[in-house]
Amino acid sequence: MDKLNIIKIGGNIVENEAALGNFVRNFSNLEGKKILVHGGGKIASKLANDLGIEAKMIHGRRITDLETLKIVTMVYAGLANKTIVALLQANKCDAIGLSGADGNTIQTTKRSVKDIDYGFAGDMTAKSINGKRIQSLLNIDLCPVFSAITHNGDGQLLNTNADTIASALAVGLAPYYDISLIYCFEKKGVLKDIDDDESVIKHINASNYQSLKEQGIIADGMIPKLDNAFEALSLGVKKVIIKHASDLTDQQAGTIINE
Amino acid sequence: MDKLNIIKIGGNIVENEAALGNFVRNFSNLEGKKILVHGGGKIASKLANDLGIEAKMIHGRRITDLETLKIVTMVYAGLANKTIVALLQANKCDAIGLSGADGNTIQTTKRSVKDIDYGFAGDMTAKSINGKRIQSLLNIDLCPVFSAITHNGDGQLLNTNADTIASALAVGLAPYYDISLIYCFEKKGVLKDIDDDESVIKHINASNYQSLKEQGIIADGMIPKLDNAFEALSLGVKKVIIKHASDLTDQQAGTIINE
Repeated sequence: MDKLNIIKIGGNIVENEAALGNFVRNFSNLEGKKILVHGGGKIASKLANDLGIEAKMIHGRRITDLETLKIVTMVYAGLANKTIVALLQANKCDAIGLSGADGNTIQTTKRSVKDIDYGFAGDMTAKSINGKRIQSLLNIDLCPVFSAITHNGDGQLLNTNADTIASALAVGLAPYYDISLIYCFEKKGVLKDIDDDESVIKHINASNYQSLKEQGIIADGMIPKLDNAFEALSLGVKKVIIKHASDLTDQQAGTIINE
Repeated sequence: MDKLNIIKIGGNIVENEAALGNFVRNFSNLEGKKILVHGGGKIASKLANDLGIEAKMIHGRRITDLETLKIVTMVYAGLANKTIVALLQANKCDAIGLSGADGNTIQTTKRSVKDIDYGFAGDMTAKSINGKRIQSLLNIDLCPVFSAITHNGDGQLLNTNADTIASALAVGLAPYYDISLIYCFEKKGVLKDIDDDESVIKHINASNYQSLKEQGIIADGMIPKLDNAFEALSLGVKKVIIKHASDLTDQQAGTIINE
């Protein structure tokens, strides 16, 4: 099986010209097949603000009304995606920017309304990832660059969480590739001591995860991230890595999570 | 040689929901390999206006300063392109939206400053079209949908005229395909009498073009369009058709131009 790296970066890198330039150089130097998934939330919030549209967030998730959907489509699939692709091309990485509508690569369903109406938010299903189509792009030596916009197959674009897209891609492509899923982060990895940036936990597996949680070393926002990582591993992904974006090409850096 | 239809639509179709829906159904029904090129200028002007940025036009061409480049990238490559792709997917056309940066499909050079500084405007060269890459996408049964954004290969996105992209694609792909270049238009074709929408000239070739010009039947803005058409024909394109968007699937409709 070919190796495939799936790498996710957040809006904090996308909107910082120096950080993005540095990341793009490192990413281009990674050998073998690779996919990039990017956010862009802060630029979208700024644009919404400039247009006098209030960004509505509940539990860290954006409420996507129709005006907001237009804005995130413009920012994520337009400005952020094409800026990244042009920079990758300048670094000799043959990138192709995609939303989930492009090549019908990712089809989601509009989140159903329970307590909260999230608006035009797309949720993944087991069939969301079109593995054959993505494989056909990798086979002609293209590097897919996914923005966090998907579609429902019926003409509706949907705003979708970029972390979720990255892990769904990893799981959906696991039948075809030996996959490393790499989350780039503003820290050097999962930290033992939140106040010590050098206290990276090198290795987490199912058995030490339990004790790290019981000791309170892993808590709060890190728990859902790691739960998602273990779920991806249980569904065929080989390893999940959490590391700083600037350490991308350093094989030893970050926290490596496997079963 | 396989046949390839290259179809260009303007912003007037893109921004009109009913017209776009109708066009997308017709386009999806066209058999064989096809490429769509679209504008989106009016939506960009509206967004610029909402953001308090003045749209600057000279001789019908937009002056693209850095803020305007961001807007056209958001609107053309983001909102317009992904809206069209999602609608095509809903109509079972396996579309993939592209800027010239994606797959390095179209590389242009920044227009040099003479009397007017057009800013971040991209001009085509003889080598702009990456025919092999576009062919590789058509070969895996994708339908490329080009927005009017290109890049210079050095990380800079550039705003590029959609009519020019369509004719450059036709010429650049002429070595590989038997090409029909179709400009969709708000009239039913080139008219004998500008006040009579039914007075379509069915057929123009090099010899009757000369006499139509001498009689003043073809004048003004139509002359550069037809000059461009004859240039494309001289460079290997099989035929150029000017017709109304709603007549797309009617083989007899519009004005057919050949040598």
